[in-house]
Amino acid sequence: MTEFLQLISPADALNHLMENLPTRPVSEVVETIDALGRVTTDPVIAPYPLPSFPRSTVDGYVVRATDTYGASESLPIYLHLIGEIPMGEPSGFELLPGQCALIHTGGMLPKAADAVVMIEHTQSLQATEVEISRAVAIGENVLKMGEDVITGQVVIPAGTRLRPPEIGGLAALGIMQLQVARRPRVGILSSGDEIVPPGTDIQPGQVRDVNSYALSALVVEAGGEPVRYGIIPDKADLLLSMASLALVESDLVVITAGSSVSIRDLTATVINSLGKPGVLVHGVNIRPGKPTILAVCNGKVVIGLPGNPVSALVIAKLFVVPVVESLLGLQQVRLHPSKRARLSVNLPSQAGREDWIPVRLIDTPNGYEAVPIFGKSNLIFTLVRADGLVCISPDATGLSAGTIVDVTLI
Amino acid sequence: MTEFLQLISPADALNHLMENLPTRPVSEVVETIDALGRVTTDPVIAPYPLPSFPRSTVDGYVVRATDTYGASESLPIYLHLIGEIPMGEPSGFELLPGQCALIHTGGMLPKAADAVVMIEHTQSLQATEVEISRAVAIGENVLKMGEDVITGQVVIPAGTRLRPPEIGGLAALGIMQLQVARRPRVGILSSGDEIVPPGTDIQPGQVRDVNSYALSALVVEAGGEPVRYGIIPDKADLLLSMASLALVESDLVVITAGSSVSIRDLTATVINSLGKPGVLVHGVNIRPGKPTILAVCNGKVVIGLPGNPVSALVIAKLFVVPVVESLLGLQQVRLHPSKRARLSVNLPSQAGREDWIPVRLIDTPNGYEAVPIFGKSNLIFTLVRADGLVCISPDATGLSAGTIVDVTLI
Repeated sequence: MTEFLQLISPADALNHLMENLPTRPVSEVVETIDALGRVTTDPVIAPYPLPSFPRSTVDGYVVRATDTYGASESLPIYLHLIGEIPMGEPSGFELLPGQCALIHTGGMLPKAADAVVMIEHTQSLQATEVEISRAVAIGENVLKMGEDVITGQVVIPAGTRLRPPEIGGLAALGIMQLQVARRPRVGILSSGDEIVPPGTDIQPGQVRDVNSYALSALVVEAGGEPVRYGIIPDKADLLLSMASLALVESDLVVITAGSSVSIRDLTATVINSLGKPGVLVHGVNIRPGKPTILAVCNGKVVIGLPGNPVSALVIAKLFVVPVVESLLGLQQVRLHPSKRARLSVNLPSQAGREDWIPVRLIDTPNGYEAVPIFGKSNLIFTLVRADGLVCISPDATGLSAGTIVDVTLI
Repeated sequence: MTEFLQLISPADALNHLMENLPTRPVSEVVETIDALGRVTTDPVIAPYPLPSFPRSTVDGYVVRATDTYGASESLPIYLHLIGEIPMGEPSGFELLPGQCALIHTGGMLPKAADAVVMIEHTQSLQATEVEISRAVAIGENVLKMGEDVITGQVVIPAGTRLRPPEIGGLAALGIMQLQVARRPRVGILSSGDEIVPPGTDIQPGQVRDVNSYALSALVVEAGGEPVRYGIIPDKADLLLSMASLALVESDLVVITAGSSVSIRDLTATVINSLGKPGVLVHGVNIRPGKPTILAVCNGKVVIGLPGNPVSALVIAKLFVVPVVESLLGLQQVRLHPSKRARLSVNLPSQAGREDWIPVRLIDTPNGYEAVPIFGKSNLIFTLVRADGLVCISPDATGLSAGTIVDVTLI
């Protein structure tokens, strides 16, 4: 009954998985207005230039720049005012030498005009004459056609998670729909004879299914679509039949097993029966979460998480989230939210093992302080009280108080 | 036509607004499984203790600790094995002195038992006898009832945005529904004679409505519900009638006005007609976004944003997002995603003004490098190319290359 696992490092474990993932996400079309947080599967290419016409960036008088050369406060020049540029349409006239026209911010430059003098540097003398007291260079106070984007330019690469600026950029280009990755379906199974659904009254000896709920939320946050397959008793045939269904219907299957060794072995056996190559990693040199199982069955990833909720969530953050992001085709995963903080106390750790410690962040005049929350790892409210996790690398035997750490937000 | 604004600092401007916000959010009931990202309006109180019974944290033999005192490798003690603890139910027996029982991780301790000896420190000798080679203290390898949470304890304070751990914690307590803040409705109006809906073909002189789309996405991200009221021509009566409707139907109204001075003045006039006290701030000492209008009309916030999309998004991040969060009753707003980075070049700035510069983050072996993206602020793709914004405080005349900056992610 004693457990001997061949432990490998978290980084190696993740690499094992990643090598076995599909290379291209499944794509679907969504409306741009609903595309926040979705990930592009194809590069977005500008169909038009932006701006699509030369525009003034200020309120003032539109001119031929050469007409203003030499103008100054003490020696202004005078231009003939021929009208006002309407907003939202072309002026209909061409600017001749010696002429100017009133223009508003965003107005379209008339033909032959190439600069705008700010209103502050002008004086309207009479209906048809304007005094210009400052010279402007060609292009001054003007947005050129194509200055933001030119036709055919890749404006959003494939694999980009869409934020508000991208939604705005798509609107600017008149792109009302686009190809994004379908949300990867993540099948979630809980097993354990002591586990009951959260909505039921518990009897002595029973605990509610925390993991299906917490993992569903984590999957949604990562951009996936959780599908809960309920709680399966600790029997190999029942677990295998439900996991087989989940494997067919999902892009990724996550099983949280009971925490006892025999149940974990049962989970590994069931996963090995699901398809080839089966279990790649059984045991990761990490705490919490050592008995993690990473597998690929019939081209899909299957992850066996420890049953206790804190281990399950930490390991899901380290393995499930990257797999979901990879299935989304996300290219830019470097900006996971984190905060730098000063560690409040010494944190000892075992060399050779990667440790993840829940911490609370305290805002102090000298920046954030990370205060570890100690508690047995089975306690879900340890994580509720935490703002994030501090990683102690396998190379270290601990971190000293005062060390600046990067806190991964949860 | 020249504009003279009474500029105030961004911090003071925000304080002006905040003083005028409703103090308590409107609440509604949601299912726990759908509550990710929602904000609690009431403290969540534990109806039961967690764990709800004493549990083993390991696989092993459950004992009375006193029976093991003095046990060692060289001098083991022997206990009488009376059975195995079933998972998910009480054992039905009481442990008498000299007895032990097989227990699995998560199993419920029988009466009178108070510790568990890990399987590694035992030897099963025959069907009814177990050799114990290590002493355990009372409570060792046991989760006590209420060790995570006790009955009546506030487990999630009001004003907390729910993350996966909270969803798990609610499930653990059997709380299937809870009170959260209704998503604040944010009415969004665009005005400008040159603005056309993104879905239409543009004619020379016209530009598509970027702001309604980008702001909608930002509002969703902040936890609000955007309601788009379309594009209003630059006429006071039309703008007033649509803004009045939006004010009645929304918790917060955002108007992006044209960028010319006359249009901005029109917007301020219209906002003043919407209700008392009207415009509180017209002009903030910030770039981009100087001509921002902050108002309270009939107890609701109305914000007039500059028309150009970069200014609009930056100012919305600084003013609209905090108002949405305040309407949600969010207490813990300190963890907005940001990254520390080293500035790649000198960034000059004007003393007395707060500057926000779009930057790209480059991942280097020495940490992130923040590379400013220069461009006229009217260019939406400047933000698309950016990972975040660097703030130059009004006290500084710039930042030197190499300075460590906090990049607010966008």
